[in-house]
Formats: sequence, structure tokens, C-alpha cells
Amino acid sequence: KAPASSKPANARLSFEARKAQAQCAMGQRLFETIIRKQSNLAVAADVTNVADLLSIADKVGPYICVLKTHVDLFDSWSDSTMSMLRDLADKHDFLIFEDRKFADIGNTVVGQYKGGIYRIAEWSDITNAHMVPGPGIIDGLKSVGLSQGKGLLLLAEMSSAGNLAQGAYTEATKAAAEANSDFVMGYISQTPNAWPGGPGSPGLIHMTPGVQLLAGGDAMGQQYNTPEHVIGVNGADVIIVGRGIIKANDPAASAQTYQHAAWTSYQKSITAS
Amino acid sequence: KAPASSKPANARLSFEARKAQAQCAMGQRLFETIIRKQSNLAVAADVTNVADLLSIADKVGPYICVLKTHVDLFDSWSDSTMSMLRDLADKHDFLIFEDRKFADIGNTVVGQYKGGIYRIAEWSDITNAHMVPGPGIIDGLKSVGLSQGKGLLLLAEMSSAGNLAQGAYTEATKAAAEANSDFVMGYISQTPNAWPGGPGSPGLIHMTPGVQLLAGGDAMGQQYNTPEHVIGVNGADVIIVGRGIIKANDPAASAQTYQHAAWTSYQKSITAS
Repeated sequence: KAPASSKPANARLSFEARKAQAQCAMGQRLFETIIRKQSNLAVAADVTNVADLLSIADKVGPYICVLKTHVDLFDSWSDSTMSMLRDLADKHDFLIFEDRKFADIGNTVVGQYKGGIYRIAEWSDITNAHMVPGPGIIDGLKSVGLSQGKGLLLLAEMSSAGNLAQGAYTEATKAAAEANSDFVMGYISQTPNAWPGGPGSPGLIHMTPGVQLLAGGDAMGQQYNTPEHVIGVNGADVIIVGRGIIKANDPAASAQTYQHAAWTSYQKSITAS
Repeated sequence: KAPASSKPANARLSFEARKAQAQCAMGQRLFETIIRKQSNLAVAADVTNVADLLSIADKVGPYICVLKTHVDLFDSWSDSTMSMLRDLADKHDFLIFEDRKFADIGNTVVGQYKGGIYRIAEWSDITNAHMVPGPGIIDGLKSVGLSQGKGLLLLAEMSSAGNLAQGAYTEATKAAAEANSDFVMGYISQTPNAWPGGPGSPGLIHMTPGVQLLAGGDAMGQQYNTPEHVIGVNGADVIIVGRGIIKANDPAASAQTYQHAAWTSYQKSITAS
């Protein structure tokens, strides 16, 4: 029998064990969904037409734990779109993550989260925020979302070239997440295994965008890594795939391929000991 | 006659001289508006109702160079609201600054700026962005706004407690602004006079939020300074006033008071030599 010390540095606890440590209700729900569907795949539905959004959500729904939206890219938005999207989330058992990247002072994000035309807090399960405005942004979002059982991801690192979410910035974000783990369910991150002290509390989840089966980049600074690298080496829990799935000829088949790649990588990282 | 050395360290060039050095078309327009109206006051119209927005814009319009909006706080938005707001900007000669705080990768902000329900690039003259995603965010916004003569402000510093826009972050933002001064017209900043090397190119403008006649704060980390301090000591060019004007019993009278305070502080800072 191999000694415990043969466990690699990046081996992780199972999602089951981590769910038990999650302090945020929505974090627990995400771990449950991942385990139930054996999917740690999120799809970024970056389309401009709500009919396309609903069509993609219905196609990839069976293979994902999270559908990520940019509501302000859609050319229309209505209560009926909102209910159709929620119905698809219920039908296929996925969570909705509005990738708003809140980045204003506390008083302003309160209104941006609950009000306006989009009423993001009403239909999304998860949203995210940059820590650049300081901890008041968490206070503001929490004042809206905590009582409704919503969850917040903090942007600890980004995938784009020359980004400033590094070093002391990332560490301040990690400290704020740990200090608010009733509402902060985890991170948008890139290389949590390389953080000083590692990825942090097991109850917090790491989601990583900028993933494709073929590594590369775009003309505006986005950089791509493979699922195996992002999960096995960098320490992501959930991969977020956009163009690799939604631009595929068969988004459902592509989602299934990514789901398998991500889940296999996760399984390897916990059974390596 | 006093020797040139009696000029204080924070003395500045006149807005006329700085206009001549602005590389960005919208930056030149803002300097012209400030000079023509003798107003370096911006009002933050942080309301949730578009009727209130239009009413405030009409009341404070004569006293301001810029009206700042958060379009995603409004409970409705339509082409007709958009034209009524543009008409008020023409009537009162002010520029419209949508305080979107873009904070995503280049490819995403392209759609968020020009598309969606809000079509921000269509009706706003100025918008702003955080540099946390890296220079791709400027490339993305510039690909939409430059040909239309729009201008971008970069968030170099923030007014909220514990914010992370400091030190190396601020310096990277300054470098990106200087490198893109065809489209970047200036900064959202707090203490440009204290920056290493000072406020930077005279063609770039500094706008500072978090200003009230009485210094103080709110319950979510916002901190207030007076116009005299912000302009005379910290080095702001334009003050952005929200609650101090829009919550006043008489917003027009309050705007006039702030306009006078801001302009007097500016005049003192150029005539101090």
C-alpha cells in the first residue's frame, strides 16, 4: 500500500467532503448539483439573442452544473424570458450564474443587483464581483442576496493578458472571501494551487474561465487552457467553457465531451493518492 | 513681483492650455464645455426612475459640465428616454457619462458597450473602465467608441474604504491611459497630486467622486471630501457630486453652490503663482 506521502501536492478532497464544509447555502447547492450530475462543467452562453440563449440552455443543460449569462448582451429581456430560463434550469438541474462582474461601491451595487430592468437577484442563483472597490461591495450585494440564499463568486484572478488581479490583489480577495463565506461561495480563479497557502478553505469553490480543448487565445487578450491543465495542475473545480461549446456545430455533443474531460480530470485529482 | 518658485507644487495649467494638449476628441470637448460654462462640476444622477432622471437633468443642467448616469439602476429604458436625455444634454450643453465601470475581457465589453438593451455607446459621450482585466479592455471599448468620437475614463483610484486601486495598480492604469490617449480622456482618481510623478499628461482630465460640502461617509464604505480639498489639495479637475445635490431640497440651488465652490477652487489653483 502506498504511503500517504505519495499523494501529490495538488490532490484534493472529494466534492462530497467539501460540500460538508461549505458555509454558503448556494455553495452547498452547487456541490450537490455537481455530485448529482457528475458535471463540473459550466457553459458561458455568450450570445446576443434570447432565442439562442434558450436554445443553447436546452441543448447543453443535461451536461452542465452552471449556465453563465451576460444579460446585458441580450437584445431583449422580459419577464417571460426570465421564466423560460428558470424553467430550463429546473428541467435540466443547473444553476444560473449572471457574470455581472459588479465593480462599484456598496450603495450602487445594491441597486444594480436587485433593481433596474434586469433585476439580476431575482432570476440568477450566482453572481460575481471584483474586489477593487473594497469590502463594501460584498456588504452591498450580501444585503440583497443572503436572505434569498444566493451566492457570490469573487474574481481572484483573470484569464486575460496583462490583468492586474495578481499578488496582493489576489490575496486581499482571498481574505475577503474567507471572511464572508456565508455569502461568498468561491472564486473565479486561474491557478489556486499556486496561491501562497494553496486554494484555501475546501468549502469555497474555484471556477475557471478561458478553457478550450485546444489551448490558444483571441485578438483581444483572452488566453485559453485545456480542462486537464486547468483542473489537474492549476486546481480549478469547475471549468467555464464558452466559444468551445457554443460555437461548435453540435453544442450538446461538445458539452458532453467537455463534461467528460472535466469530470475525468477531477476524478484523477482525488484518486491520485 | 513674486518669483516663479513661489508657485505651489500643486499649481496647474489652465483648462485652456490643457485643452490644447488633449489627444482625445471627447477630452477636448469636455475641456471646451468646462471653459464655456465655467463649470467643473459633474452630477451623479443616481435615481431609479427615468422621470426623476430627466427632471434632475433639466434642473441641474445649466450648472454642470457632465451628467453621470447608472443606466442599469433605472426601472425602465427606451429609445424615447434616450432621446429626451440627449435633448437635455443639447439644451443645457453638458456631456453624458455612463458610469458602467466596464470590468470584463475585451471581447465581452465590445458587446456590453455597443449592444444589449442599453446600447451605451449610442447615447453616452463618456464611459469608464477598470484596468483589472488588462489592456484588452481598452482595445475592446476603443474598437467601438473611437470612430464615434467617444471618450473613456480609467478608474485609477476609488473613494471607497479598503479599495485595491492603489500603488502598482494605479501606476499600471496611468501607463495604460498615457499609451491610449487617443481614446482615454482621463481618470477617475482621488489624489493625483500625490502620484509618483504627479497627475501625468496635462491633456488627461481627473474626475473625482465622493464629494460633499460636508466631509463624512455612508454605511457601506463610501467616504466624502470637500470640493476645496479635492481640487486644491488632491488635484482633481472635475468633482462628481451625487447625494449632496440630488437629495437636496433644491437641486438647482445646490448645483449652483457646488459649481461655484469647484470653479473658485480651480481658479485659486491656477492663480496661486
